[in-house]
Amino acid sequence: MAPHVLIIGGGFGGLTAAKSLKHAPVKVTLVDRCNHHLFAPLLYQVATSGLSTSEVATPIRSVLRKQENTRVLLDEVKDIDLENREVTLRDERPLSYEYLIVAAGAQTNYFGNLEWSSNSLGLKDLDDAIELRRRVLLAFEAAERTADDEARRKLLTFVVIGGGPTGVELAGALAELSRRTLARDFRVARPAEARIVLLEMLPRILPAFDESLAEKAARHLGELGVEVMTGEKVTSIDEDGVHVGGELLESGTVTWAAGVQARPLTARLGVALDRGGRVIVGDDCSIPGHPEAFVIGDMASFRGPEGKPLPGVAPVAMQQARSVAANIGRTLGGEARKPFSYRDKGVMATVGRSRAVLEMGRLRVDGFLAWLAWVFVHVFYLIGFRNRAFVLAEWAFSYFTYRKGARLITGRRIEAGKPARLVEPSEIDVERMQARRREEEERPPLH
Amino acid sequence: MAPHVLIIGGGFGGLTAAKSLKHAPVKVTLVDRCNHHLFAPLLYQVATSGLSTSEVATPIRSVLRKQENTRVLLDEVKDIDLENREVTLRDERPLSYEYLIVAAGAQTNYFGNLEWSSNSLGLKDLDDAIELRRRVLLAFEAAERTADDEARRKLLTFVVIGGGPTGVELAGALAELSRRTLARDFRVARPAEARIVLLEMLPRILPAFDESLAEKAARHLGELGVEVMTGEKVTSIDEDGVHVGGELLESGTVTWAAGVQARPLTARLGVALDRGGRVIVGDDCSIPGHPEAFVIGDMASFRGPEGKPLPGVAPVAMQQARSVAANIGRTLGGEARKPFSYRDKGVMATVGRSRAVLEMGRLRVDGFLAWLAWVFVHVFYLIGFRNRAFVLAEWAFSYFTYRKGARLITGRRIEAGKPARLVEPSEIDVERMQARRREEEERPPLH
Repeated sequence: MAPHVLIIGGGFGGLTAAKSLKHAPVKVTLVDRCNHHLFAPLLYQVATSGLSTSEVATPIRSVLRKQENTRVLLDEVKDIDLENREVTLRDERPLSYEYLIVAAGAQTNYFGNLEWSSNSLGLKDLDDAIELRRRVLLAFEAAERTADDEARRKLLTFVVIGGGPTGVELAGALAELSRRTLARDFRVARPAEARIVLLEMLPRILPAFDESLAEKAARHLGELGVEVMTGEKVTSIDEDGVHVGGELLESGTVTWAAGVQARPLTARLGVALDRGGRVIVGDDCSIPGHPEAFVIGDMASFRGPEGKPLPGVAPVAMQQARSVAANIGRTLGGEARKPFSYRDKGVMATVGRSRAVLEMGRLRVDGFLAWLAWVFVHVFYLIGFRNRAFVLAEWAFSYFTYRKGARLITGRRIEAGKPARLVEPSEIDVERMQARRREEEERPPLH
Repeated sequence: MAPHVLIIGGGFGGLTAAKSLKHAPVKVTLVDRCNHHLFAPLLYQVATSGLSTSEVATPIRSVLRKQENTRVLLDEVKDIDLENREVTLRDERPLSYEYLIVAAGAQTNYFGNLEWSSNSLGLKDLDDAIELRRRVLLAFEAAERTADDEARRKLLTFVVIGGGPTGVELAGALAELSRRTLARDFRVARPAEARIVLLEMLPRILPAFDESLAEKAARHLGELGVEVMTGEKVTSIDEDGVHVGGELLESGTVTWAAGVQARPLTARLGVALDRGGRVIVGDDCSIPGHPEAFVIGDMASFRGPEGKPLPGVAPVAMQQARSVAANIGRTLGGEARKPFSYRDKGVMATVGRSRAVLEMGRLRVDGFLAWLAWVFVHVFYLIGFRNRAFVLAEWAFSYFTYRKGARLITGRRIEAGKPARLVEPSEIDVERMQARRREEEERPPLH
């Protein structure tokens, strides 16, 4: 009877682990609470209407359909019993294993200020992205409806908290959405005057990058019209907006991209965790004392060569997955395990539609060339031919036209808002609107 | 001061009316509670994962962005005051008009059995389609999880009520989804054995078509594996399934496509309505006694040449919209109005991926040729170049591969279900599964 390998999570780590076990003499069960593998680095594109949901997500079942030793279960793991080698699923149903790979990823971390989550939104899954897209588009719609200038200014202020790659990419995409895509679509609201603010607590954005690249990224953001505020700590987020540096930044749409922590499942293991809830794993990514149980990706705290924990990025999760799969094979074959070692693939972030920064070892690139590299890497890693082809087509389309196709508000239809006087048709001055347009057309392009 | 034309609804009627007023000496406001124009005839494709949401919907604002005499408001009309020429929006805000075009469309009609709606789903907007897609995909996922054969049979039974074009197209697409797209993706559930039942109260399906075409459509459906039950009246729908002809059809996924009625806004007008809540309009589509107010599309009851009311289809709404816009122009220019006359464009319905039936005057076509005509007409009418190109690409892709790209479960993640024993890995017999596949491969193809 082939031993049973249970994988929790269908992200970059879990899916790679399943694929790496294709020819191993095991039965594999992959459990995920979503039916899709998500290409998380492009979530910000869904949130800003650049890509549609099906372009950044693929059914896990479909990716693994030809792998006959593997089944996929849409279910949620509630508990893990390392002693009895058993997990508890939703409805208290147990599932036993011989080997366990825990790869359920990370979630938004408000660092204890949970109440901030009611007036801001993280960006960790497809539902988050759909909801952020809905809120951003509704803000523009509400700005078009209201006759109150002050309310309109608040509606057209978007604050992104966190100057890592997600925050930088989201802020850049929001700037393009408002300055380009939506610029001509409104009569009263002026999306081109929307205020996009990127807040970072540290003295500079992109702390994982070399300082020269971070400066260039900040300059590109400025050219796109993003206000970058660094060295400012958020003191609270409420329905008025973001309180920072003693001032109130009035905004109705706040995104929190300032931190992540391991999903709380790690706390069920009863083993040592780091401050972000990550499991401190051994050199083969196994849980100390449990050579049959592994933790990989954003849930694992693995010390790299310089003693620093490895970052929560896709290449770490994927390389750990391959290492764990190979070590399970070695153990089954009676061989000794090999310790995991990380090969750094570098970091990159894109700023708007044609700029990026890229750092790989001692190589540092910025501008259009870095952006081309970014496109290539992201399309290459997208799971499945279909997604690759469609994403490329979408990008080509929006690159040349600035039009974004996925501008859909779904779900609860219209937000309840405070009553305000409506703009009367007589107040819309078509001639002034045309003059404003001519003026805008005469302005130099953003790049 | 240019007179104000207020259009309620951004469907085929409202959007066409706005476009037709592009060069008229008026100011136009189009109000819709959704931000997108929906290509409703393809909603069933979203519900069965064939197309993604952004491929059947386009932001109304984006379609009309160059039309400077027109503004778009995302808002909901709560009331209409014909005497004072004023509508009430959400939050009680008033908006006055000189001309009114009411084109807010139809909604699902349960013919007084409102309690059926808690165990079935209509298919009228994008949220319906996303929800149906979610329920269908979750049914397959739950069938894969459970070890209870009876529960699995119920999960894999899909009932579509209503044998009009929507019901026929949805049933055919569900058959293909289960028999083709999902056939290889599961280990325990056998999607190819899913039961798809199409129920029609009348003695035959497609009552709007010639009997010979309806028979051919029924045969095509049979070849796809759809059970067509005609002459059977549903007596109730509850959590066990559909009660029909004294028997219970056990099913967890029931779609109601058996009728529509005008949205309840028509009841606010205080004028004569037909049984479906439609406004009985004059020969220029105006409300009797109110030459400045028009009702078009699914909300209007307009007697055709033979005294029969015109059907609720896109061509009727679009032709009425053009007629109304032209008559507003005539009235403003001091000319007499011309009565509306409908030019029948015929009817068509598709059955699966390569069959359709088409009737146009005395012309009756079925099979592949009719399907090609269906593709052409649907792509031609899709608003916007982008959608056309992407829909064609999706169709080409899924035509040649049978893979459907938009199989995403979003929203509330996993349905609460009754606890059932889980299938253990040891119960999955890979060899039997392989044998079953060989068997399936040797079966003759569906067409």
